[in-house]
Amino acid sequence: MALEASLAALSIAAVSAENATPLKTLVFKPKTAKTATPVPIVVLALTSTSTPSGLIASSANAKEPRLAKEEIFQEFFQTTAKEFSVANLNKENAAKVSILIDSNISESEVYEVSTESSKAALNGKDILGYLKSLEVELTTVDFSSAPAPAPASESKQAAKTKTAKDTSAHLEGAEKIGITIDKNLDFPGWYQQILTKGEMLEYYDVSGCYIMRPGSYAVWEEIQDYFNGAIKKMGVKNAYFPMFVSQRVLEKEKDHIEGFAPEVAWVTKAGSSDLEEHIAIRPTSETVMYPYYAKWIQSHRDLPLKLNQWNSVVRWEFKHPQPFLRTREFLWQEGHTAHLSFEEADAEVLQILDHYESIYHDLLAVPVVKGKKTEKEKFAGGLYTTTVEGYIPATGRGIQGATSHCLGQNFSKMFNISVESPEGADKPKLFAWQNSWGLSTRVIGVMVMIHSDNKGLVIPPRVAQTQAVVIPVGITNKTTKEQADAIYDGAKAVENQLLAAGIRAVGDYRANYSPGWKFSDWELKGTPIRLELGPKDLEAQSVTVVRRNDSAKFQVKIADLDAEIPKILDQLHDDLFNKAKESFDTHRVIVEDWKDFVPALNAKNVILSPWCGVMECEEDIKDSSAKKNDGSEEEVDEKAPSMGAKSLCIPFNQPELKEGTKCVKCGEKAINYTMFGRSY
Amino acid sequence: MALEASLAALSIAAVSAENATPLKTLVFKPKTAKTATPVPIVVLALTSTSTPSGLIASSANAKEPRLAKEEIFQEFFQTTAKEFSVANLNKENAAKVSILIDSNISESEVYEVSTESSKAALNGKDILGYLKSLEVELTTVDFSSAPAPAPASESKQAAKTKTAKDTSAHLEGAEKIGITIDKNLDFPGWYQQILTKGEMLEYYDVSGCYIMRPGSYAVWEEIQDYFNGAIKKMGVKNAYFPMFVSQRVLEKEKDHIEGFAPEVAWVTKAGSSDLEEHIAIRPTSETVMYPYYAKWIQSHRDLPLKLNQWNSVVRWEFKHPQPFLRTREFLWQEGHTAHLSFEEADAEVLQILDHYESIYHDLLAVPVVKGKKTEKEKFAGGLYTTTVEGYIPATGRGIQGATSHCLGQNFSKMFNISVESPEGADKPKLFAWQNSWGLSTRVIGVMVMIHSDNKGLVIPPRVAQTQAVVIPVGITNKTTKEQADAIYDGAKAVENQLLAAGIRAVGDYRANYSPGWKFSDWELKGTPIRLELGPKDLEAQSVTVVRRNDSAKFQVKIADLDAEIPKILDQLHDDLFNKAKESFDTHRVIVEDWKDFVPALNAKNVILSPWCGVMECEEDIKDSSAKKNDGSEEEVDEKAPSMGAKSLCIPFNQPELKEGTKCVKCGEKAINYTMFGRSY
Repeated sequence: MALEASLAALSIAAVSAENATPLKTLVFKPKTAKTATPVPIVVLALTSTSTPSGLIASSANAKEPRLAKEEIFQEFFQTTAKEFSVANLNKENAAKVSILIDSNISESEVYEVSTESSKAALNGKDILGYLKSLEVELTTVDFSSAPAPAPASESKQAAKTKTAKDTSAHLEGAEKIGITIDKNLDFPGWYQQILTKGEMLEYYDVSGCYIMRPGSYAVWEEIQDYFNGAIKKMGVKNAYFPMFVSQRVLEKEKDHIEGFAPEVAWVTKAGSSDLEEHIAIRPTSETVMYPYYAKWIQSHRDLPLKLNQWNSVVRWEFKHPQPFLRTREFLWQEGHTAHLSFEEADAEVLQILDHYESIYHDLLAVPVVKGKKTEKEKFAGGLYTTTVEGYIPATGRGIQGATSHCLGQNFSKMFNISVESPEGADKPKLFAWQNSWGLSTRVIGVMVMIHSDNKGLVIPPRVAQTQAVVIPVGITNKTTKEQADAIYDGAKAVENQLLAAGIRAVGDYRANYSPGWKFSDWELKGTPIRLELGPKDLEAQSVTVVRRNDSAKFQVKIADLDAEIPKILDQLHDDLFNKAKESFDTHRVIVEDWKDFVPALNAKNVILSPWCGVMECEEDIKDSSAKKNDGSEEEVDEKAPSMGAKSLCIPFNQPELKEGTKCVKCGEKAINYTMFGRSY
Repeated sequence: MALEASLAALSIAAVSAENATPLKTLVFKPKTAKTATPVPIVVLALTSTSTPSGLIASSANAKEPRLAKEEIFQEFFQTTAKEFSVANLNKENAAKVSILIDSNISESEVYEVSTESSKAALNGKDILGYLKSLEVELTTVDFSSAPAPAPASESKQAAKTKTAKDTSAHLEGAEKIGITIDKNLDFPGWYQQILTKGEMLEYYDVSGCYIMRPGSYAVWEEIQDYFNGAIKKMGVKNAYFPMFVSQRVLEKEKDHIEGFAPEVAWVTKAGSSDLEEHIAIRPTSETVMYPYYAKWIQSHRDLPLKLNQWNSVVRWEFKHPQPFLRTREFLWQEGHTAHLSFEEADAEVLQILDHYESIYHDLLAVPVVKGKKTEKEKFAGGLYTTTVEGYIPATGRGIQGATSHCLGQNFSKMFNISVESPEGADKPKLFAWQNSWGLSTRVIGVMVMIHSDNKGLVIPPRVAQTQAVVIPVGITNKTTKEQADAIYDGAKAVENQLLAAGIRAVGDYRANYSPGWKFSDWELKGTPIRLELGPKDLEAQSVTVVRRNDSAKFQVKIADLDAEIPKILDQLHDDLFNKAKESFDTHRVIVEDWKDFVPALNAKNVILSPWCGVMECEEDIKDSSAKKNDGSEEEVDEKAPSMGAKSLCIPFNQPELKEGTKCVKCGEKAINYTMFGRSY
């Protein structure tokens, strides 16, 4: 029975969801005496959950479970492995198997259940409700509590527990290097794997939340240092406002909160007491801050007021979470300033945007395009929004990098942030002109997606926790103790020399790992360069420097390291940036005719098109590009999302708009070139 | 009718509460036509809430309300102004007045209602319930939304709205300088006033939460810089773990969570959906982190693991909140490390404690005593706790400064943080030795309470947002424009010179304020030194430097500023430290006989006594010192809390314990000198 038919039979209604979380249904056969009938184990888990066989064994109280072969599917479920899903369970066969359920599956989310031939989005509530209706024991398993396999054995382990479905994206020889998923074939799987194996991030027990390990937090600290320096020069001061906001205050400004309301997390209990008034966790701090701006700003001499805070905000999204890009709690900075004049506010918006551009270009080696958001995409309640927009080559999607908003006087009028006119109390009072601007840990995800590869992370040198690793090499059975000591001492001396020169260097002197293993380990973590020191290097008083991004090698005299290593790191930065820029530049195409629009999108481009500036036309572009308007029935790329194109920004840097140019969609007069794309 | 009798008549039961939040009941008379009967306005508010008459007028829809005179109290309530409280309201008189209630008053808190002759602690629920039973309209007012009066007029305004009760602590001539409450007479009122008027902190709409304004956040940033530098040298890395923890995981370790459970804030809703599992906001991160430590630590080569995070934690205490000292959300750092051996963990505990001492001594100019906590006071679930303990001279109370815990193997055994023995897989596995250590924004409160005075804040120079303010002086009606310009230019040049020398300097060139007003303004904010530049200074090419802490003046040649200002700031730091140290030293007295114990406490001392080390004896000391064991019926100092003395620590630096010394309380053999005191 096909999936749809099975679901219909079970009265499970399919729902529509752009971003349902994919589920997998795996079947394992435990080791069973030949004379006995096996009790297969059915595991229902998020596709992103790794399900080590050890944990399956202990949870199902079974021996050595292995992925079941075709016969098991036929015998127990009367279907094929390819067409099997949770919908094939019924009271009869469920009584003959063990059922394990991933604890990450919750009633409140939407999931995608798929077989090879079809798929459906279903409410978690319906799935779990159906399983309960089977009247058999269900075991919920917290797979995240499983100990990670040790480095040496982990890739084999991972390879063993892969489902057949993953094989297509499986890297040849991957066992040696840790990363087993090909960036080009399974981008989401690859992304998750390099983040976790590269020790940037750990999946967490609460869905949508992640642990930022030192490898990613160090990137954030470099960004903080840079940005603090830049804004303090502008007279911005750091402060800290509470994470809580009362329901009454949060809901004061209806229009603004409307967009956030479905995602607000509410504290309703403390200890065992119910709170009389529910307290929200800030999704952003406009309503937290502005009542106090109104209090503090009494005279034009209190302006400008420029505050920034580094904090976490919570947006309890029900869409499929993605590390760094869509998380329920995330770190960011939010600046909120108030000015006496529009001109001053207006100028600051662009100064901040320049700093954001600089974080991308000069720290993360990621090219971005500066521009203004359309009316449809601007910050709700603001006057206008400026943005830096990036591009992810692997998916051909645009991504918003950071935004700097001019709020105009909308908020100051709502919150009464006003001063007497400097010209006298008899003149009308003046409402402040306000800005707000924010950049989040999303930047780290963008950086990783763009530079990293099938060997692991590639971290640009200026934000890398470790910029250079020193590894002793060339020690064999024939090496004498004196020679070995000399190599280790030499490596240690090189490490110290680099540290003294201000390079974030580490020496890897672990005795029981081979140099090759160490190379892979540091490549996995994305360390920009490694310095190898062996007998010949020592003799020549030089080291071999190898770049992470392209394996280019250089011999550098030890005496020249202080001068050369910073140059090599800068060159590496520039090369990463230029490579990414070339990719963005070649995939940012000008499209004048609508017939070329969707094919260009499908070819992983973002698009610059002449546009009329009308909101309805923008919505039409999104709707029309979501369908397969190129006439073909099949998508060009299986992984390309079928979502429509949104406007990303109206770039400041505009192609020349010739007299009489028509809007790409509606044919009315075009007013500018706007950048459109599928996006995150 | 006396307060107690009134309450009894109303069936409002008094409750016991160490730290009930004080309430005030104010009565206002609006402007009323002479022929009409006035409708007085009764305002029930937190004593800490400022209740501007403008807001009272608009809330009660009345004209120009003024504090009511004696006749109104007699006419409407048949009592005196001094004896009036909420308990004097009844259905009859309530119908003749307007009643405004501070929105900060909540059902779940305990309040102190007082008249001149008596006071009682009552449940908010009972108070609000009683008011509702009056069957009249009650208007709830959010006084925090009121605009603050502008600086020039604010002290007068504040003075006007003061109740008679405040007069005793009222500073003479205070209108000129902003602070109107005497540190020695009303310490809590003074503390609140210097924090808010000094622009360190703002009271927030959600009770127990406060806004850290740049003046206090800058202190925190200096501490972060120092501490990051210190721990990174030790190999500690920063990371960020989520603020949420699932109920299941939080409650995994019952003993540990027991102490936190009543204070845990629970998220139960997102948008309009009820969450299936309630999610806690971390009160501390042991249970957040350690499941992942178990995952990451697989081999002895993964040890030591040393992570730290800068974050906020939430403890929803129902006791009276106090800025920085007891807040529902607070910022801190929490370090969590795991080691292979006890020796390594043990050594780190003390290294960290040294860094904490250094933050107090070298940054905040606050003396602390290092020591070990008793078994009763140590961190629940840990092996032992070390601490730095401070002393607040104004109240004679001790205060815990920061703690560094050795957790032993208790948590590692619960969370299975273990490795194979380096001696072989056949040997028993080894559980990690763990530490955790934390320092919070409480340090800022301690610093403020110790150094500041009746002119406002005194901020030690190494953590001051602004270290030096440059103020042009001596410009009169007779000054020519050229002379004035020369003075302003000279001041600006001095400011730039200081900035170039790395001093955090600001020039105050506001034209419409007098130098005297500016002096007071910067004194209020606690800026360590001001530099005055007038015509004579300019002629002599020197500036007048005035120290905030003691008004000491120096003439410094402009050419010598780069060298002299750092010296002056360092000397100021040392003087602040030495003054505080002298106070701590002279109020840390050795008491050998129990009869001297409570009198010494009442004389605002902390006490070093020989002690037996038995937990029951410690509890006995607390109980016995809470009563008036000195035989007198009256407290020595009205403000001295009647709470019992807790053990603060067993100082590392011990007086010589002579053979045969007996415990100060129980008379058994003493094992050390322990420091006891009333405390925060």
